[in-house]
Amino acid sequence: MAEVGVEYVRMGEFAWAQLEPERGAFRFDWLETVLDLIDDHGLNAVLCTPTATPPRWLVDDHPSILQEEADGTTREFGSRRHYCFNSEAYRLETRRIVDALADRFADHPSVAGWQVDNEFGCHGTLRCYCDDCADAFSDWLAERYEDPDELNEAWGTDFWSQRYDSFDAVLPPRHTAADHHPGQLLDYYRFSSDSAVSYNELQADRLRAANDEWFVTHNFMGHYEALDAYDVSESLEFASWDSYPTGFAQELDDPSSDELVAGNPDQIGFNHDLYRSAGDGPFWVMEQQPGDINWPPYSPQPAEGSVRLWAHHAVGHGADNVVYFRWRRCLEGQEQYHSGLLERDDSPGRGHDEAGAAASELSTLPTDGAVDADVALLHDYENLWATGIQPNSPDFDYFDHQRTYYEALRSHGVDVDVVHPSTDLSEYSAVVAPTLYLVDDELAERLEAYVAAGGQLCVSIRSGVKDRANKLLESRPPGPFAELVGATVEEHESRHPSQAQSVTYEGETHAYHTWNERLDASEATVIGEYDAGEPAGYPAIVRNEVGAGAVTYCGVWPSDDLARRLVADLLDRAETPRLDEPLPSTVRVSSRGDAAWVVNFGSEPVSVTAPGAADRLLGDETVGAFDCAVVDAPGTALSIDTGSR
Amino acid sequence: MAEVGVEYVRMGEFAWAQLEPERGAFRFDWLETVLDLIDDHGLNAVLCTPTATPPRWLVDDHPSILQEEADGTTREFGSRRHYCFNSEAYRLETRRIVDALADRFADHPSVAGWQVDNEFGCHGTLRCYCDDCADAFSDWLAERYEDPDELNEAWGTDFWSQRYDSFDAVLPPRHTAADHHPGQLLDYYRFSSDSAVSYNELQADRLRAANDEWFVTHNFMGHYEALDAYDVSESLEFASWDSYPTGFAQELDDPSSDELVAGNPDQIGFNHDLYRSAGDGPFWVMEQQPGDINWPPYSPQPAEGSVRLWAHHAVGHGADNVVYFRWRRCLEGQEQYHSGLLERDDSPGRGHDEAGAAASELSTLPTDGAVDADVALLHDYENLWATGIQPNSPDFDYFDHQRTYYEALRSHGVDVDVVHPSTDLSEYSAVVAPTLYLVDDELAERLEAYVAAGGQLCVSIRSGVKDRANKLLESRPPGPFAELVGATVEEHESRHPSQAQSVTYEGETHAYHTWNERLDASEATVIGEYDAGEPAGYPAIVRNEVGAGAVTYCGVWPSDDLARRLVADLLDRAETPRLDEPLPSTVRVSSRGDAAWVVNFGSEPVSVTAPGAADRLLGDETVGAFDCAVVDAPGTALSIDTGSR
Amino acid sequence: MAEVGVEYVRMGEFAWAQLEPERGAFRFDWLETVLDLIDDHGLNAVLCTPTATPPRWLVDDHPSILQEEADGTTREFGSRRHYCFNSEAYRLETRRIVDALADRFADHPSVAGWQVDNEFGCHGTLRCYCDDCADAFSDWLAERYEDPDELNEAWGTDFWSQRYDSFDAVLPPRHTAADHHPGQLLDYYRFSSDSAVSYNELQADRLRAANDEWFVTHNFMGHYEALDAYDVSESLEFASWDSYPTGFAQELDDPSSDELVAGNPDQIGFNHDLYRSAGDGPFWVMEQQPGDINWPPYSPQPAEGSVRLWAHHAVGHGADNVVYFRWRRCLEGQEQYHSGLLERDDSPGRGHDEAGAAASELSTLPTDGAVDADVALLHDYENLWATGIQPNSPDFDYFDHQRTYYEALRSHGVDVDVVHPSTDLSEYSAVVAPTLYLVDDELAERLEAYVAAGGQLCVSIRSGVKDRANKLLESRPPGPFAELVGATVEEHESRHPSQAQSVTYEGETHAYHTWNERLDASEATVIGEYDAGEPAGYPAIVRNEVGAGAVTYCGVWPSDDLARRLVADLLDRAETPRLDEPLPSTVRVSSRGDAAWVVNFGSEPVSVTAPGAADRLLGDETVGAFDCAVVDAPGTALSIDTGSR
Repeated sequence: MAEVGVEYVRMGEFAWAQLEPERGAFRFDWLETVLDLIDDHGLNAVLCTPTATPPRWLVDDHPSILQEEADGTTREFGSRRHYCFNSEAYRLETRRIVDALADRFADHPSVAGWQVDNEFGCHGTLRCYCDDCADAFSDWLAERYEDPDELNEAWGTDFWSQRYDSFDAVLPPRHTAADHHPGQLLDYYRFSSDSAVSYNELQADRLRAANDEWFVTHNFMGHYEALDAYDVSESLEFASWDSYPTGFAQELDDPSSDELVAGNPDQIGFNHDLYRSAGDGPFWVMEQQPGDINWPPYSPQPAEGSVRLWAHHAVGHGADNVVYFRWRRCLEGQEQYHSGLLERDDSPGRGHDEAGAAASELSTLPTDGAVDADVALLHDYENLWATGIQPNSPDFDYFDHQRTYYEALRSHGVDVDVVHPSTDLSEYSAVVAPTLYLVDDELAERLEAYVAAGGQLCVSIRSGVKDRANKLLESRPPGPFAELVGATVEEHESRHPSQAQSVTYEGETHAYHTWNERLDASEATVIGEYDAGEPAGYPAIVRNEVGAGAVTYCGVWPSDDLARRLVADLLDRAETPRLDEPLPSTVRVSSRGDAAWVVNFGSEPVSVTAPGAADRLLGDETVGAFDCAVVDAPGTALSIDTGSR
Repeated sequence: MAEVGVEYVRMGEFAWAQLEPERGAFRFDWLETVLDLIDDHGLNAVLCTPTATPPRWLVDDHPSILQEEADGTTREFGSRRHYCFNSEAYRLETRRIVDALADRFADHPSVAGWQVDNEFGCHGTLRCYCDDCADAFSDWLAERYEDPDELNEAWGTDFWSQRYDSFDAVLPPRHTAADHHPGQLLDYYRFSSDSAVSYNELQADRLRAANDEWFVTHNFMGHYEALDAYDVSESLEFASWDSYPTGFAQELDDPSSDELVAGNPDQIGFNHDLYRSAGDGPFWVMEQQPGDINWPPYSPQPAEGSVRLWAHHAVGHGADNVVYFRWRRCLEGQEQYHSGLLERDDSPGRGHDEAGAAASELSTLPTDGAVDADVALLHDYENLWATGIQPNSPDFDYFDHQRTYYEALRSHGVDVDVVHPSTDLSEYSAVVAPTLYLVDDELAERLEAYVAAGGQLCVSIRSGVKDRANKLLESRPPGPFAELVGATVEEHESRHPSQAQSVTYEGETHAYHTWNERLDASEATVIGEYDAGEPAGYPAIVRNEVGAGAVTYCGVWPSDDLARRLVADLLDRAETPRLDEPLPSTVRVSSRGDAAWVVNFGSEPVSVTAPGAADRLLGDETVGAFDCAVVDAPGTALSIDTGSR
Repeated sequence: MAEVGVEYVRMGEFAWAQLEPERGAFRFDWLETVLDLIDDHGLNAVLCTPTATPPRWLVDDHPSILQEEADGTTREFGSRRHYCFNSEAYRLETRRIVDALADRFADHPSVAGWQVDNEFGCHGTLRCYCDDCADAFSDWLAERYEDPDELNEAWGTDFWSQRYDSFDAVLPPRHTAADHHPGQLLDYYRFSSDSAVSYNELQADRLRAANDEWFVTHNFMGHYEALDAYDVSESLEFASWDSYPTGFAQELDDPSSDELVAGNPDQIGFNHDLYRSAGDGPFWVMEQQPGDINWPPYSPQPAEGSVRLWAHHAVGHGADNVVYFRWRRCLEGQEQYHSGLLERDDSPGRGHDEAGAAASELSTLPTDGAVDADVALLHDYENLWATGIQPNSPDFDYFDHQRTYYEALRSHGVDVDVVHPSTDLSEYSAVVAPTLYLVDDELAERLEAYVAAGGQLCVSIRSGVKDRANKLLESRPPGPFAELVGATVEEHESRHPSQAQSVTYEGETHAYHTWNERLDASEATVIGEYDAGEPAGYPAIVRNEVGAGAVTYCGVWPSDDLARRLVADLLDRAETPRLDEPLPSTVRVSSRGDAAWVVNFGSEPVSVTAPGAADRLLGDETVGAFDCAVVDAPGTALSIDTGSR
């Protein structure tokens, strides 16, 4: 490990049965031996609490810790993540094992910090429907609403006679004949996320109590929906996440042959930028794909170079460390078809050499600079949950809609912070806000102030629709943003794919899909109009000048092409530097400190021209297939030629 | 409401928690206030019993009222329709709330009548598998069969050792490894429908006991399968139903762009004609779609004009009232994405003005005439259930097959009664009987008498196959109709879509699909023959002259084209007036009293020529997109030119 | 029956409720009457034990005999196969009824033998998850592993903290949040198969104890996966199976119009050859399709001639008897849409006459010769289970992969034994081993010895991957076969269908699909190479000369074309006679004794030229659509001309 350039060794995330084979019989010596070895070689360890896999004897002692499905079926022992966050019994057991581990290794020199548990919510386990959850949900509601009538009023339980006389009467959203109440669902989603948040905090507190120089982190998953990463990160030193590019690519519609073997840089980059923001600074990739993997439908081999490429891509987005999962292929258990840097016979796999190359290169590159993005994209798990509860179309997906704008921004070479709407926006020259669904006056005032002070804001469909309890506002969308936007939504519709869908914008016709809103542009200037089907002639996109800034409202889900046009205009109005020509989707540039990383996720070479005196820190003018380059210049100052693409 | 032309206000269908927030604490004052207001403005009220949504406290008192799935999972509180029809506890609660409401408002002048409950069976709740249902099913069987051996004989329980020693031993068709016995399933479907029938009757009786001038109705759903609307309607003054054209259209294969925004007139019209017959006279549309709706996959906006069009279409088919659901968009609960005539901010939506226009026009049109159809189409829920239990093809659907013939009839401009086979047919010049599956000698005799007396009958595939217990008859199909038809079925097959499927009829080749029968035409004349694949050369369609009439037997599921040809010949032999040229599927005409309604569900105008002196009561010669016209002439006397379509 | 040529009458497989309508009240007289009648006409009877359908009263006495799903849902009474193999209560009941039947009919002259139960495992019932199974599984594990630590070591339970302290702690693989442990799954599959094996043995022993001249068999299903037919057959005199060609055809991707009406000869033939091997000699078809059937999605009529064709096809593969299911269409119960040789009205159906023709022809043909195949195809249920547990691709299916090679062999006119890898291979000139997944050194040594002695062996993808406990071997694939093959697998991948997939072999380019392996050909000769996508240039197919023989390793799932080329070369190297030109997939030849059966499963005639003096025992030179011929010559000596096909 030391030879190949490894600096951190992560261990123990599922080792409870090895650490405590029977109750109270702790066996920590083997781990200490390994830690000593790590120390001997000048490396550091990241230890993991083993709580994702309570052992068989513990489940036998407390069968009630098992989760339950919405239909009452128990999630049994036999895989992983079978415990309920709201089991008091399990919280006691958790404290016991975490304390024991923390105490034992508090003074070990090689332990740099801890990962709490492992991938909260994996396999759909963030939400549980057991009786412990029912009790905890009632308590959570009691704390939020104080009086049941407050809950009845907030949710709107007059509909379908759903009023409650007590908090105890409210159950988790178990199996029902028809849809659950959207107020109940949204609060259950909040409660479920909060349950994991407090469970994480419980562990983080114990670990820091043992050694306050340790960092504490958690390894989040890519575009995971059920857990609010901002909230969890409140009790972490930094966020980390697990990146599996070729697996994620198979979740795309019709992935290209390049995406199948290297992933999509924006699908990955969105997560980098989100977790950097959640952790408020540099993040880690805690699990980086080292070769072919077991869990997607197909398991193609990554393209040659991509294991190295992914490391550079992460660092260019602000990663401080890239940890590979796993060192060696595991010969037993559920993940035998997951490769490691070493093959089953201990020989180095392709990933091993590529990871070593990346480690060696990165040790010479300037990686202590920060990412300093000019543009923010507003992202909120509560909007994700609420639109998921009532999508109003099989084609509406919050993450996909966000990515449309994210990709447009990235195609222009600008860096992006993916941030929660509560973030201070004053330092951003431009802000994109796709689907600000759940809103209140305070948010409207903050956005107005941002624009009035000169900000350039772009707001998209389904914004200003609901209050925080998931009830429709009485005013038409965009509700409290109506004055800022200078327009209201007369009618919206989710379009059937076979219906005609196009708009004109700046004299050109562009496709849209999934959703449209017929706008009533009372104050704003109409800059886009429907030109097909029933809505033809209605305003589709408007712009409103407010104080020193302006806001653009786009009432459709734009094609990639239209999104790029809209975003280019936004950046230009904000005087934010951008590339002259948009990049193809396989090529991206990101800036960190004074240097820019150019990554090529495609199988065709590109040519990178740097401004006069800029040093080429890695690579040269031609960046080949699945290769990268680092230049000592801002990313938007480069000129990138992709030939005929 | 009064201003826009509303005459009836329907209320209270889910208001139990508002009417009785805790046991015995009735709060009816708010409802009385509204009724007074309705009376003050000269309107009438339709009150609804609130039994579709028992409140939380009631469920806590009687958890056993909840329904259960076939696998034993409880359908919990949290949406609607969570009660079991066979819960004695719930029947007592039902009597209590219905009596209280009926007594309180028995003398209120604005209350014209009642809707019982709401959409029995919605969300798949007609059939329940709980222990109360198990007991009630045993009782139902005991009443039907008296002795278990009668049941064993009727069902045929020798197969797979399924014989029962007692009625108590028979369970609902809960989860099993393989198919349930078809005899058990059919009786469980009958029992389940009967359970709702008796539950409806219980309410209707209490309401009439309070005020025998009230009408009692129930709002059925479109093409709903699990409930026998004929049986329910026995205890109703009239039937009503809930019409959502753009939602239904998305259940069609590959809906056209016109269907997506206005619906399919025959899909809607079939229900009008069915519920008119079930209620034995004029019907109501109790919920008419007012704009975009929440429950289909996609929610396109209805075409301009369609909200008005649907009202005229219903009235032309014999509706006495068209009630919109809902007045104003609801800001809370599961149906926030369901529009109302008023928008969320109380401003009128497009539907509001169109509904007002329809109200104003209809007040001047002759709507007291009756629909007097020359043609009957035989429709029976028991045939639907039995073919659903053993479809013998993924492509066989009873409603779809019926609609093939219904559409053919409607394309010729004739009015159709969709009636139960037990109906007196003597007044009909022609009768179409698609899939008379479960039969007995009495039905055969009635049909023979009909034909012998001069009737023209068309019988289709899968007729005369089974007895009433869902056992095959010992004679080949069409069983007791063999003599009438003059042919028997030598072999049938359900065709794989990739197999060649065509027949010749009157010298032309036509496609068929899904099903064929090789006929042995002992007495009948062969008028259609297979000309492709294995059955080539076998008779496919035969005609038999019997007494003064004739019967056509069609042994395939015909293409739309062939169905139109067959039906045209049937009508001509019956000397039933029809249009010269069949209409395109978007244009329909229906006659009520002396007037004809022409409705255009398409985006292209059509031209309507009326016989010499006929008054144009609404519209003129050109009927535009999604528009309609009313002419003082029989529908089949018109000439409708659709240009190139 | 006697008139049409029936020799054996099979009866009673679901008749428990008729044989014992209430506990202890046996009613065997009706069966004796039938047996007497059979005897009177010189026929024989095959009686069946009725244990597949315990009657209602028995279930009421012992509700615990019912099976349970993995989520705990009971498989209730109401269809069939609702008993658990591991219920001690049911084993007692089984002994009781089997003893009673065996005692009663031990001396009846017409009873030739018995079928035990009926289609073990049909409807997914081979695996049950009830508490009885949990106990029995613990016992089974205790016997296999003796000490829990042996189990922990064998399975590899360190992964995800899955170690067990006792055998009682191991449960069936009930519902979990994520994948089950592959070691647990494989052993549960073994245990489940063993449970049926011992249940079958229990019955066979009782039957033989009553009359040791009886044969005992069981009717297996086509390509059934959960039951090891080799193991069951240990306690049978011969194997039999149930053949439904048109139903199986609908399980193929995109079946042709010929396959829809006659089936695919290799899909059927594979089962003939497998069950012949499992039963170690001539087999029976215990249920042969007599016409259209009820259970596939569609129910087309079989082509004219196919009912006769299927009988000849079976006999040509070594069947001793072909029994039709059923004699007459059943008017009641779940299988009303299943035809019989007699129609519902007792008149003969098409199948009746065709079955009669086959009986008459076969009585004159030489059917006492044995099938003497030169080639073996290695087939192992454990490999099927293990690859099914971790397929690593939605497109990998063990049976499909086996059939690729089987079809290639059959296209060359050679006979094939489908045998377990433990079979003595010394008499085979060539052996094909597709996916020898679970391996050990002993198997490697046996294969090496086979090749060294002059055998020609072909091994395919995913061979030598795991040990018997379903853990990866520490050495790269093909593990213990590496020296024999002369190559190792550097990397494998499951390809996404959109990725380029082709290889060159002998100068021509061929497609492959689903899987590839980049080989490191240390000793072997490279005879095929990747020529597209990332693996281009790597070895794909290698050959290694070992002693007097050679082994070919094919590292892709070959196209049909490539498979035919590979197999032709294998046969030629083995000097195994084959046809000059490969047959189209609808035409097959098989040899039994000195005669060859030529079957035409297609709608186009073929022309068969026999060597000089060979007698034509059935048919002549032209074999028409769905017809067959028998020639007194080895199959590979024929010349079959299919015209332009």
